[in-house]
Order: sequence, then C-alpha cells, then structure tokens
Amino acid sequence: MVHIISKKTVSFIGQKLAAQIDEQLFTKYGFKVEQLMELAGLAAAQAIAAHYPKSNVAVLCGPGNNGGDGFVCARHLQQFGFTPSIVYPKESRNELMKSLVVQCETSSIPITATLPTNLQAFPLIVDALFGFSFHPPTREPFTEMLKTVRASGIHVFSIDVPSGWDVELGAPSGNDDDVIHPHSVISLTLPKLCMKNWTGPHFLGGRFVPKSLVDEHELLMPQYPGFEQIVKLED
Amino acid sequence: MVHIISKKTVSFIGQKLAAQIDEQLFTKYGFKVEQLMELAGLAAAQAIAAHYPKSNVAVLCGPGNNGGDGFVCARHLQQFGFTPSIVYPKESRNELMKSLVVQCETSSIPITATLPTNLQAFPLIVDALFGFSFHPPTREPFTEMLKTVRASGIHVFSIDVPSGWDVELGAPSGNDDDVIHPHSVISLTLPKLCMKNWTGPHFLGGRFVPKSLVDEHELLMPQYPGFEQIVKLED
Repeated sequence: MVHIISKKTVSFIGQKLAAQIDEQLFTKYGFKVEQLMELAGLAAAQAIAAHYPKSNVAVLCGPGNNGGDGFVCARHLQQFGFTPSIVYPKESRNELMKSLVVQCETSSIPITATLPTNLQAFPLIVDALFGFSFHPPTREPFTEMLKTVRASGIHVFSIDVPSGWDVELGAPSGNDDDVIHPHSVISLTLPKLCMKNWTGPHFLGGRFVPKSLVDEHELLMPQYPGFEQIVKLED
Repeated sequence: MVHIISKKTVSFIGQKLAAQIDEQLFTKYGFKVEQLMELAGLAAAQAIAAHYPKSNVAVLCGPGNNGGDGFVCARHLQQFGFTPSIVYPKESRNELMKSLVVQCETSSIPITATLPTNLQAFPLIVDALFGFSFHPPTREPFTEMLKTVRASGIHVFSIDVPSGWDVELGAPSGNDDDVIHPHSVISLTLPKLCMKNWTGPHFLGGRFVPKSLVDEHELLMPQYPGFEQIVKLED
C-alpha cells in the first residue's frame, strides 16, 4: 500500500529550477550521482511493484541520467519478481552507465538496442528515455521507437517526465504519435510543471533533498510517512 | 510493520565468504560502492525507524565501508524525522567518505571526533564502527569510546557486525567492556556466523544480490515481501 497525499501539498517545478536543484545536490551538497540514481531507480521500481502485477517489463533507457534511473529500476524490479528486459538504443560512454550495463548483464537482464520483436509479450513498458533536461522534438532512433510504443497500446510507466513532453507545457498538441502517453508516472524530487493537469496514477519519490535546499527555494516537499520512499499524489 | 521470516530460511556466512561476495559484487557484477552503501544505509535507517521512536541518535562511524553505511543511515534517519549526530573518530582519506562528510555537514548533521559530552541526551546509539572485515582486538581511539558506550547503558543498534565482535565467534568471552553489547542488529546481505545465537531484535537488509551469485555460493537468501528492503529474523 502506498500512502496518498494531496497534490496541493507539493510544489510543481519548472525546468530551470529542476536543473538548479540537481546541480546543487551534486556540488554544494556533495551527493554522488550513483547515490541519488539508486534511490530514484528504487523508488520507480517500488511504484511499479505497488501498482502493477508481476510480469515481463520492457525498460526503455536513454543515454542520460533518466536512462540510468531505468537501469537501476530494472535491477530492483528483478529483485521484486518482475522479468525485465532493457532496451538501450544509444549507448553512453559515461563510466557509470557502462557499470549499469555490466550490473544488468551479469544479472541476466537482456539488453538490446531495439524494441523486442515480441513486444506484445510485455504487458508493461517503463519509459526512462528522457528526463527533465529534454527539449522537444525527439530525434532518431527514438522517434521511431516512440511511434511503435504508441501504436502498441501497451501500458507505459514514465520515470519523471514522459518522453517527448515539454517539461513545462506537457504533451504537444497536434501531432503526438512520437510521444509517450503514459498510463502512470513517478515524479522524482518534485513533479514538474508538465504534470500539473495529469489525472492518471501519479507517484512521487526522491526522499533525499536536504532541508536547507528546500528552504532556499521555498519548496513544498511531500510528507512521506514512516520510512517510505514513495507516496501517491491525488487531488 | 516489518515482515518476519524464520532465521532457519537464510544462510549464516563466515568472514571469508562475506569478503568474497563483496569483492565479486564490485568486480564481476560491476556494482559501485556508492550504490550498495546507499541501499545498506537506507535499510539500516528503515530498521531503526521501524523499531525505535524518533529521537536524538548518535551514529558512530568508522573509517571504512561500515562507517560509510553509518553516514548514509544518518542522512536517511534525518529524512525520517530523527535528529542524528555523527561521531567520526578517525577521518578517512577516501574520496567517497569525504563526500559523505560534506553531505551530512550541509544537511546540518553535526560531526564530531569524540562522543558528545551530553551522551545521555541520546536515547539511541548506532554502531557503524567496524564491519565484516574486522579482526579483534579494538584499538585506540575506539577502545576508549567503546568503553564509554558500554558504561552508558544506552541502547545500541549495530550495523552488520557488532563492533569488537569476532565476525564468526561473536562477543569475546571474558573481558568485554570495550565491545558493543547491542540492543538490536541489522545484518547486511546475509547474517554473519557471529549472529547464530543472537536472540535480540535482528533485521536483515541488502536486497541486491544477483541470482547467479546466490547460485554460485548456494546461498539461502531471505524472502522479502513486495518491494520491502528489510525483513526481521525470528526463530
């Protein structure tokens, strides 16, 4: 069971502030990407395990930190009894991303560059392609992949910002066949402005922001119960 | 609430095997210390929050990875509403340990080299001095500190191996005034042999061991429920 809080009790933040908080966490506050990515990926996996039955799950990972969250999420999903496969279209040269690949490979989580041909064997897709630093439009090889996912009708769980969305404005109006239409979303740290009018299942994770950073930006942080790492946002 | 499992359902491991599993996680399986330390420290904080009321808590951190778990634990305890203070007698030159110091300092968690003079203001002490690579006896400045903690009668929660214990044989018989007599313990990955006859509250965390590593060593791993990161061991 995930504790429910009102979305009115938390700040929705813009792209610039999200980037600034991220930057401060890694400089002034001394956090390592590995640490916060582990907590983010764990929170995402917990939200999925709370909301969906155990199944095959295709985890689409981009080359940046959002993709890293996806790799970590896949690892934890396997621990929770899911059967993850990773789709990793554009390999990063980043050393941490290379380690995440090794972790998943040695954990017998398949990694492919393209969508599985038997996509319908996956009742759930995790979208970890682009995060809060994305600027539309999407480019190849992602555009084609997003179109296939959209056409498949398979439920998608997005990590932070649904891929293809403007971080502040949300899904593009007009042609949106290369954009994720998520079934559910987990926001990390705080929801981004694009989530303001979202009415589907909405989780929130990232219980690691120090109080002085919260105070500096006058953020409304979620009230997590006990030692939980995720909450669910409702009206 | 923490799920309870029988201690008969998990392996108790020796010092050599614990070291070997650790080494394999960081080499063959490609894990980063930062990742597994984050999960270990989080599990420890969750066990504490599940078992003790919110209070001041003094977290004694050694210079190695057990101490690193302690720093991470302190950070999460603060998020859970506890008021942690860190006691860090022997500074490490390790780059990750330095980052952990910055994280706690900027989170307004006090760090001192010696025990607080008002130790009785702390209803709980977390022992993160030595882990599974410890060999008795303890040395200064730890011996004196352990004696003071012992004499204080304050409840101690130990992370992995209670400090001063032989990893396999447990608490020394005879003179044991410089040894932790814990009130409760969290074992990480799997309990060590020294915990075999332990009858106090006993938690287990470290839900990250890949299946092929489990199979290679024919380990009995705990059955964690749902997406939980800790279980409690009972007879």
